Amino acid sequence: MRSKICAIIFLLVIFSINLVADEGMWTFDNPPTERLQQRYDFTPTDEWLEHVRLASVRFMDGGSGSFVSPNGLVLTNHHVAMGQLSKLSTAENNLVATGFYAEMFKDELKCPDLEVNILVAMADVTAEVKGVVTSEMSDQEALKARKAKIAEIEQERKEKTGLQYDVVNLYHGGEYWAYGYRKYTDVRLVMAPERLAAYFGGDLDNFTYPRYDLDMAFFRVYENDEPLKSENYLKWNAKGAGKDELVFISGNPGSTDRLYTYPQLEFQRDYRYPMLLKYIHKRLEILRDYAGKGAEEQRRALGQIFGLENADKALTGELQGLMNEELMATKKKEEAEFRQKVASNSEWQDEYGDAWENIAELIGKREDFAHERFYANLRGSSLARIARQIVRYVTEIQKPDAERLEGYHKSELERRKFYMLSPAPVYKDLEEAVLLGTLKMSIDVLGEDHEFVKIILNGKTPEEVVKNLFENTKLDQIEVRKNLMEGGEEAVKKSKDPMIVLARELDPYLREQEKWYRENIESKLTPATERIAQARFEVYGKNMYPDATFTLRLGYGAVKGYPYNGTRAPYKTTMYGLYDRSLSFNREEPFSLPDRFWERQDQLDLSTAVNFVCTCDAVGGNSGSPVFNRDAELVGVLFDGNIESLPGRFIYDETKNRSVCVHAAYMTEALRKLYDAGKLADELEGVE
Amino acid sequence: MRSKICAIIFLLVIFSINLVADEGMWTFDNPPTERLQQRYDFTPTDEWLEHVRLASVRFMDGGSGSFVSPNGLVLTNHHVAMGQLSKLSTAENNLVATGFYAEMFKDELKCPDLEVNILVAMADVTAEVKGVVTSEMSDQEALKARKAKIAEIEQERKEKTGLQYDVVNLYHGGEYWAYGYRKYTDVRLVMAPERLAAYFGGDLDNFTYPRYDLDMAFFRVYENDEPLKSENYLKWNAKGAGKDELVFISGNPGSTDRLYTYPQLEFQRDYRYPMLLKYIHKRLEILRDYAGKGAEEQRRALGQIFGLENADKALTGELQGLMNEELMATKKKEEAEFRQKVASNSEWQDEYGDAWENIAELIGKREDFAHERFYANLRGSSLARIARQIVRYVTEIQKPDAERLEGYHKSELERRKFYMLSPAPVYKDLEEAVLLGTLKMSIDVLGEDHEFVKIILNGKTPEEVVKNLFENTKLDQIEVRKNLMEGGEEAVKKSKDPMIVLARELDPYLREQEKWYRENIESKLTPATERIAQARFEVYGKNMYPDATFTLRLGYGAVKGYPYNGTRAPYKTTMYGLYDRSLSFNREEPFSLPDRFWERQDQLDLSTAVNFVCTCDAVGGNSGSPVFNRDAELVGVLFDGNIESLPGRFIYDETKNRSVCVHAAYMTEALRKLYDAGKLADELEGVE
Repeated sequence: MRSKICAIIFLLVIFSINLVADEGMWTFDNPPTERLQQRYDFTPTDEWLEHVRLASVRFMDGGSGSFVSPNGLVLTNHHVAMGQLSKLSTAENNLVATGFYAEMFKDELKCPDLEVNILVAMADVTAEVKGVVTSEMSDQEALKARKAKIAEIEQERKEKTGLQYDVVNLYHGGEYWAYGYRKYTDVRLVMAPERLAAYFGGDLDNFTYPRYDLDMAFFRVYENDEPLKSENYLKWNAKGAGKDELVFISGNPGSTDRLYTYPQLEFQRDYRYPMLLKYIHKRLEILRDYAGKGAEEQRRALGQIFGLENADKALTGELQGLMNEELMATKKKEEAEFRQKVASNSEWQDEYGDAWENIAELIGKREDFAHERFYANLRGSSLARIARQIVRYVTEIQKPDAERLEGYHKSELERRKFYMLSPAPVYKDLEEAVLLGTLKMSIDVLGEDHEFVKIILNGKTPEEVVKNLFENTKLDQIEVRKNLMEGGEEAVKKSKDPMIVLARELDPYLREQEKWYRENIESKLTPATERIAQARFEVYGKNMYPDATFTLRLGYGAVKGYPYNGTRAPYKTTMYGLYDRSLSFNREEPFSLPDRFWERQDQLDLSTAVNFVCTCDAVGGNSGSPVFNRDAELVGVLFDGNIESLPGRFIYDETKNRSVCVHAAYMTEALRKLYDAGKLADELEGVE
Repeated sequence: MRSKICAIIFLLVIFSINLVADEGMWTFDNPPTERLQQRYDFTPTDEWLEHVRLASVRFMDGGSGSFVSPNGLVLTNHHVAMGQLSKLSTAENNLVATGFYAEMFKDELKCPDLEVNILVAMADVTAEVKGVVTSEMSDQEALKARKAKIAEIEQERKEKTGLQYDVVNLYHGGEYWAYGYRKYTDVRLVMAPERLAAYFGGDLDNFTYPRYDLDMAFFRVYENDEPLKSENYLKWNAKGAGKDELVFISGNPGSTDRLYTYPQLEFQRDYRYPMLLKYIHKRLEILRDYAGKGAEEQRRALGQIFGLENADKALTGELQGLMNEELMATKKKEEAEFRQKVASNSEWQDEYGDAWENIAELIGKREDFAHERFYANLRGSSLARIARQIVRYVTEIQKPDAERLEGYHKSELERRKFYMLSPAPVYKDLEEAVLLGTLKMSIDVLGEDHEFVKIILNGKTPEEVVKNLFENTKLDQIEVRKNLMEGGEEAVKKSKDPMIVLARELDPYLREQEKWYRENIESKLTPATERIAQARFEVYGKNMYPDATFTLRLGYGAVKGYPYNGTRAPYKTTMYGLYDRSLSFNREEPFSLPDRFWERQDQLDLSTAVNFVCTCDAVGGNSGSPVFNRDAELVGVLFDGNIESLPGRFIYDETKNRSVCVHAAYMTEALRKLYDAGKLADELEGVE
């Protein structure tokens, strides 16, 4: 008897530990209130949640941010701003290298194609979406009906409210929500430090901690050519958060695979990750060759190289997670327990029991296809991509909304056109080098007799094909694109632009490929994952969060160091450490620092906190998320995870998983003393 | 054919990589000249080697050092000096906490029981030692003859030269060398910083890097009450060594197990390490309880706690090495290759082939015994140890030298008596607490019916036994010990000192135990390991180094960072980093720093290098080893290995294995600007 009681107590202890771990990327309709109350004695009010949500900004190029003044000022990461900084730069005026600061509104720089979103409305449309599927429908019909319904919901709500609506699939089909966004496309650059300060330590220090990065950038949202009146903004708190203090993040984690079935994880481990990494390494090789040609080439390629190095390191860390036997054993055990619970209830078993096998079968089918689908594609050229989109656009917009391909529904067209007609600079030489390299890779992998390869080459060499494409295309001129789009199918059919010609020839093949995927995989995978999601709700209730979907989520946790390198990583770093790390590497790149850091060192308070870590659960896409305290005061900006957090795509481990953040104090210290941006610091700190 | 050539080229590449790795703890008779020439274009001359050897100092309490001025000044680590610092301290004057500096010779403090050695003579006596063993002898007789011969060599050479001679067993019996030492026992403390500066980061940062420790201490060797004229000393070079520069260490690595057979490693992994760690954890518990009683108790226990925490971390890291499948697979492969080579030559196979099985059998036999031998012992009391030694001493010195137990041969008596009559303070309350704790552990493990336990308890409780021992012993008085030793067997027999009484009762049991080990294990293990050593010479020649034996060795390597924590550890750290780490932990212990570091910060050059890492192969015992460049200039003092170096007990891995050293610049910067010890800095830098 005694041992039984002990066992029960033990289970309770385990359970409560699990219960209170700082895990989760929670949707705003289902915040972790119980957990917060239990562990931190804090319960967010509805007003608090709404305020935080409306202060949160999604960057459509991939990232998060927040309003930090009543005048539309948005804080994010330098690396989230990198794309726009590159697009705003020229050979003569490289903002990535020099940084930028506009003291006056009039000097702020309008970004060529930056869209930001505020999540202002959320509605559960699960019943609506699932309701269109009847038992008589085939899987293919059901998929079509579901997609049509989603497009309809988006468009109807858009028309009614003027908001941009996206229907989001949560819990892998457990729920569908219509998220309504206020969308802004007049966004201007206010301030960014030099990349050497923002990305101090470069790819080496990326995804690591202790860290010393000024990874911040400031934009301002405009409406009718005036700074947006942003009522909901986070007040600045330069004192930051103390050790062990509760903090939150609100941002848009991109994607996680925590709810995957075990065979899905194996597929990632054995198949998808090795394929992606091989591709990334090859593409990096191509880019480095190109960048080696000169300073301007280096500038042009930098953004892509950064992105790929970042992906390389992230994917490598994630793959190591999948290769970790302990992690996989935990996953296997969790799934076995879940399935056993389903099996223990005959109704559940009948309803959901075979969904796992269904998925396992589909994965087997998918393997070869995934490979082909990945390589039978033109990669690395924005012009080739735009050409393909033009060819589809003119056809799709002729159809009734329900029949269109995804991405071309009415509700999606405004956003689609915004990017298709982006005035961002196009570097043909760079695109040519990359497209040639990736095309050769595709030929290597698929073989010369593959349909895709035959369409592309058509008897010519890859060099000839690619040379012709870039020598003779006019798609780098926005007017040309516009004319084709407005000219419709007729204009596209007549066009002799080699990019359009190739896209036209390729389109039937790609449509066939996509159709095969929809009919043979997606239409079967969707109901299977929906059933597992449903089973999970039945068994565990809704005290959980969905996998990340690049939509707004709330995370929470404590500012806290962790065991590392045989010792402990501290909860924060200081400016002393910044100078230490630079000098430790003899000030060599990527550990050099902009001159101002050396010239003005004696004006700085070196004990200023630079970066800090917290247990908040985050993933790529959360970059730029505000970190705030229980009074919703901004204490930092999230910019990375530590190396131990990378397997977090699959599992959260509070002992070592940490989010890495820029401390508010470092930002204002730098603005005031290094960047002569006292006016901006005043705006942040509410100084009149 | 082509693939064959490729294979050969591949093997050559592998071989040359192996060949040039910065591996090895080389004896001075067999320096790695070829490797040095190949990789670093440097060949040490005989004069260089002799100079370096004579500048090297062995600390008999376990550690290394070097002469750094012509006046007998010796540099070592603070943690090597810890024992003497504790012994020189009192409740009122705690040198460990306050640090110490004697500006004048007359203020230097004589250490109670510090012996240092300079290796001045080396002779190969392999033939002599092995020559006494004849084929008619039984294993037991051979062991006896070998030991008698060793004692004879030591004593004869000592008498002839006045040097302290030790016969050292190298390569596990491959060679025997007579090492002649100039021995000094008048050693005085010159300078030591506070422990908070020396051991900054405490047990947490121990065995890690990046690091920021001022782990230095200075002693002066006296001869005839005058500072020793130390002609061979290392010139100070405060510039230190640059990135990738060749450096050397010369010191006394304590012990490694790199030449163990695979089953010997398994024995360590499955048996010995778990046993030792269990013991260490329990003893730490006892000590922490004791230390919790008050500040003075804490001071008294500090040295032991430090030693045990250090051992705990080291052994844990070593055990992780043994648990690493890759490491063990490499070991297995190496052994298989070696044995295959032996087997490929029938003469070798006859001579050496069965030695591995012999050892494997002995390990099986040893397991139970090892356990008993470990626990059937009084641990944690210096008085109990001295009592046992007195009981043996009076008996052994009556016997002819050849018959005596090890440790009591003529050549060993001077050293033996030096420690038995040490005037170092004895803390009876601490010894009582520890002995009681370890005794209870022994009773737990061995059971109440075990002979050892019965002898100790003799019907009483452990508390009664231990209380009586410490209440009534007078062995803390040196005079009492001396009288017993001089009174001989008669005096010991009559003594009623409870420590002596217990030691007397225990001695027959311990002698029996030791005899069993000699006759059943050691006498068989010795010829088997000797044969493997011989086989190794036959197969691989002598382009190798022996396992560490706490005798003088030369190591070499480059100053070089390494991959760590998802990024790179720099080759050095700076004083900026010291302040960063302290402030990162809010100046909490063990990351607080002595007040002078805060008060005088503005006088310091914070870019001063603090610690650095090099690929030199080292292990515990090397602590305090000088690090010097090809001009034999001192650029630092070795004080630790990184966490990745701990499996180095079994295997060396150049990619990550690093020695951690205090930079010469930090030492002089601290002496001059923090410790007002400009005079000492002048002596180091040769400033008149």
